[in-house]
Amino acid sequence: MNKWINFDFGSAAGFIDQSELSAMKKEINAAHQILHEKKGRGAEFTGWLHLPQQIDREELSRIQQSADHIRSTSDTFVVIGVGGSYLGARAVIEMLSHTFYNEIPDGKRNGPRIYFVGHHVSPDYMQDLLDVLQDREVSVNVISKSGTTTEPAVAFRIMRRFLQEKYGVEGARRRIYVTTDRTRGALKKMADEEGYTQFVIPDDIGGRYSVLTPVGLLPIAVAGIDLEALLDGAAEAARLYATPDFHENNCYQYAAVRQYLYRSGKKIELFVHNDPWLHYFAEWWKQLYGESEGKEGKGLFPASVQFTTDLHSLGQYIQEGERLMFETVVQFGKPERDPVIPEEENNEDGLNYLAGQSMNYVNKKAMEGTLLAHADGDVPGLVITVPERSPYFAGGLIYFFEKACAISGYMMGVNPFDQPGVESYKKNMFALLGKPGYEQEKQVLLQRLKR
Amino acid sequence: MNKWINFDFGSAAGFIDQSELSAMKKEINAAHQILHEKKGRGAEFTGWLHLPQQIDREELSRIQQSADHIRSTSDTFVVIGVGGSYLGARAVIEMLSHTFYNEIPDGKRNGPRIYFVGHHVSPDYMQDLLDVLQDREVSVNVISKSGTTTEPAVAFRIMRRFLQEKYGVEGARRRIYVTTDRTRGALKKMADEEGYTQFVIPDDIGGRYSVLTPVGLLPIAVAGIDLEALLDGAAEAARLYATPDFHENNCYQYAAVRQYLYRSGKKIELFVHNDPWLHYFAEWWKQLYGESEGKEGKGLFPASVQFTTDLHSLGQYIQEGERLMFETVVQFGKPERDPVIPEEENNEDGLNYLAGQSMNYVNKKAMEGTLLAHADGDVPGLVITVPERSPYFAGGLIYFFEKACAISGYMMGVNPFDQPGVESYKKNMFALLGKPGYEQEKQVLLQRLKR
Repeated sequence: MNKWINFDFGSAAGFIDQSELSAMKKEINAAHQILHEKKGRGAEFTGWLHLPQQIDREELSRIQQSADHIRSTSDTFVVIGVGGSYLGARAVIEMLSHTFYNEIPDGKRNGPRIYFVGHHVSPDYMQDLLDVLQDREVSVNVISKSGTTTEPAVAFRIMRRFLQEKYGVEGARRRIYVTTDRTRGALKKMADEEGYTQFVIPDDIGGRYSVLTPVGLLPIAVAGIDLEALLDGAAEAARLYATPDFHENNCYQYAAVRQYLYRSGKKIELFVHNDPWLHYFAEWWKQLYGESEGKEGKGLFPASVQFTTDLHSLGQYIQEGERLMFETVVQFGKPERDPVIPEEENNEDGLNYLAGQSMNYVNKKAMEGTLLAHADGDVPGLVITVPERSPYFAGGLIYFFEKACAISGYMMGVNPFDQPGVESYKKNMFALLGKPGYEQEKQVLLQRLKR
Repeated sequence: MNKWINFDFGSAAGFIDQSELSAMKKEINAAHQILHEKKGRGAEFTGWLHLPQQIDREELSRIQQSADHIRSTSDTFVVIGVGGSYLGARAVIEMLSHTFYNEIPDGKRNGPRIYFVGHHVSPDYMQDLLDVLQDREVSVNVISKSGTTTEPAVAFRIMRRFLQEKYGVEGARRRIYVTTDRTRGALKKMADEEGYTQFVIPDDIGGRYSVLTPVGLLPIAVAGIDLEALLDGAAEAARLYATPDFHENNCYQYAAVRQYLYRSGKKIELFVHNDPWLHYFAEWWKQLYGESEGKEGKGLFPASVQFTTDLHSLGQYIQEGERLMFETVVQFGKPERDPVIPEEENNEDGLNYLAGQSMNYVNKKAMEGTLLAHADGDVPGLVITVPERSPYFAGGLIYFFEKACAISGYMMGVNPFDQPGVESYKKNMFALLGKPGYEQEKQVLLQRLKR
């Protein structure tokens, strides 16, 4: 195999009985089969499985055209979406962009400023966003399957009003891009009536698996990231991980080992990285795994930490607190730019032993040392190594985690593609907000709140 | 009591046996006593207890003078610190500043741009930071008790070199502000020799309790935040929470209830907020509780979620995954600016039932509904309500959590002021990096890594 994503048991090897792990191959095979034959629970939402190879080229080229148009007419781009409708795009954009992307001068930035909204209903955030948009040339992408989800719908009402006041009704129309259902729903209807440019959220792909659909692709392209490379990486992953052979399939090994550790009593999986640009990738991962597996009283609680930062915060707990967790480390190859630690004549800080070394070198040694320390503290660490920070490997890594998640969920015996529990708070919220049709629930809740 | 921070059992009340909770008063009393009489473990690090009332007025005025000077001579301020040496300042600054503080134009911003570095050794982050500093007028505050902690020491070497190249050796001297030990350590020595402006980290206050010392105060003042109000709020909290009377002491109630829930099998505490400006406050809280309690195989695993954002990601798990957790909600009173949801004639998104309502209203109802939904899913929710987003109540809330943490830690039987587990990774890292004195450890680790 050429340069590709590597998975190894890292410091977890000592925690695993190889014969017990081998016995799990049958489960892996079974999960593989029902996934590929579309016979498992939630099979109607497995469109992501062959998506990278079956991408709609015509729509892809429309996405790129729209992105190019936005890049040439706007210095600011606003993405409206919640959950899977923004996390994937944000993860890829932050993974592959300058740390201070929005803060560097317009000429030096590789695209318009990008803001996300509609992923909550914070009044301060909305007002502050309106402040920064005042003097900017703005385009908006609203992403919602139904068009009635509260958070993005509220944000879209406000943003559309803002655009109409700034550019007039007709001008606003040309600056709104809609990603929604192919045929149904409020947003689809609105888009048809207003003549907004439209992109389709496929019916057979749920929100948290949707980053490689137009949901993620339009914002990612606006950020100047190469979609072809992203999709090529995902396609290569789809090809590599299509084999049911456990020993040949990294992705299935990860699925098996995390199930193994879960069954041995580890209830928390920490996604560990030492690159600040993986922060939103970790958030994307948390949704993917938490929402896919956290049901029927089961599931690894997904949390994330950034090292070495959090070694000075959660490090103590990881080393010596309740023995509940294992770590999944995602690390990358050498960065393009790598500052070197300068020599200082007097060496008062005692750092001259590192003079001439690069920061990446220190970062890597810190991670190696940490994994050993945590293993000594009964916290096993799995290691995923990605050759480089690039669109190609971003695509590969996304697919790696998507497929491992599906397999892992099937091994756990749940439907990895539904999210029934998300409705509970929505129902209560609608009732308390006085949404028509929820009058009876409202009375019950008000009684409970009085107590 | 006038307007103050409120604590209530919220939806957790139904999970608590009042007589069992009452029985914990004795423990609370005992913890109170050893804390106030400085007879508990780690008593030598309880200087934060009376800090707000005993603040050194002379040093406070020097801090304000330096902050004013920095504000008038610099458009960019860089804070170098890791763990407790940056989290508190960052928490307060982000809590009380514009969401896009660094991105709004210089004239409209309430102080210089602020960047944090030295909280990890990411090469990309450092290089990207150097990019944005190129054309700016920069001052630096380096915060380290010893001056030899790897992350900030590496960052300081690089930043000092940057300043020297930009301003010359003498110019750089005037732009470096050092917060360090009163008498000892590498950074103290360097500061004396170079004549840097200095502020003192008290000996009796550990990193995670240090936000109201010069460690936090200088950066907070540079951001234009009122230090007097911040300290007044903390002083009022210190006064109110000095009573051992459980019924009069909100802060002790929180400590007791979280211990109660922990003993009943809840192993994860979720810090919940619905204000994006609390993100770093949550990070600060995670360090405070995780590092204070996570030892001897004990401790609540501290995690944080932002609603409603994370209801579309971790919400499924919280509602229906493993039953391991409870929630501690921190919510604030009505915001100053509160966008209203506009009416739309055709109402295609079905939101007109909310037209004329403010976003804050929706946000609050969402939280109420969520707490009830989660309680139905066996996740109790405690509620801390803060009257307003202001320096005064930020100070109060900081002290609330600090004192509750100390009491809670003593109830758990650990030393809430040490962090012995943080040394393990450091020792390994030093060995792998070839630091003089770690030769033997290095050989052992290299052997282990080969396996």
